[in-house]
Amino acid sequence: MDVPARIDFVTLGVRDVERLRRFYAGWGWIERPGGDADFAQFQLDGMRFALYRLDLLRDEAAGELPVRGAWSGVTLSVNVGSAEQVRDVFRTAVAAGATPVTEPVAREWGGVSGYLADPEGHRWEIAWLPGFREDR
Amino acid sequence: MDVPARIDFVTLGVRDVERLRRFYAGWGWIERPGGDADFAQFQLDGMRFALYRLDLLRDEAAGELPVRGAWSGVTLSVNVGSAEQVRDVFRTAVAAGATPVTEPVAREWGGVSGYLADPEGHRWEIAWLPGFREDR
Repeated sequence: MDVPARIDFVTLGVRDVERLRRFYAGWGWIERPGGDADFAQFQLDGMRFALYRLDLLRDEAAGELPVRGAWSGVTLSVNVGSAEQVRDVFRTAVAAGATPVTEPVAREWGGVSGYLADPEGHRWEIAWLPGFREDR
Repeated sequence: MDVPARIDFVTLGVRDVERLRRFYAGWGWIERPGGDADFAQFQLDGMRFALYRLDLLRDEAAGELPVRGAWSGVTLSVNVGSAEQVRDVFRTAVAAGATPVTEPVAREWGGVSGYLADPEGHRWEIAWLPGFREDR
């Protein structure tokens, strides 16, 4: 059986589950029932997004903790329908406690995007890519 | 405008784009046209998965490179419909060059999962969670 071409869960290992849970709830994201002090999951469009206590996820997935404060090397993007929506959503996310990393700017690939960090440094891109998500 | 509850792109910053492109193609994943030496994107079910040269993604998203070989603190999961499918897909992924991190085992949350690392250490979980994806 091939590896199915999908991602069902993106899980961030986090040091403060409660803080991050409040942060993502502040984006308007809906937590699913069944979470606890170590775990929270949010239902996204077609997938789930989970927060899991970093040392527990480390025990399952790895063997060493990532360096505190270092960037993970991963970005997660939310695409919207116009440059104006990028600026609008970017402001909303910052108002909810995200740290601006780069303000929305025109990118050489033809769209507009800005980067934010969540309270533990995970990077999110808010992006408009012409021809993608213009139905939204 | 709220932050839309979805992830449109998961992007891994990678040191060797060509090697990782071949690795994910070996999982049977289909690369979209338009890639180049620095960038590759794969169409997944409802989202895209991208590989981008780490220093270029760093320039866009961050400011410091992650520590080489360190785990990112992020896991990406592919869920399948049974414990047997977990073992089957796990074998396929390893045969395509992934490094086993933990073999599939029963988890206290009621399912079965195993973890793999891609050639640059990004963690993938192959999982069966009863009641999720049993249609597949």
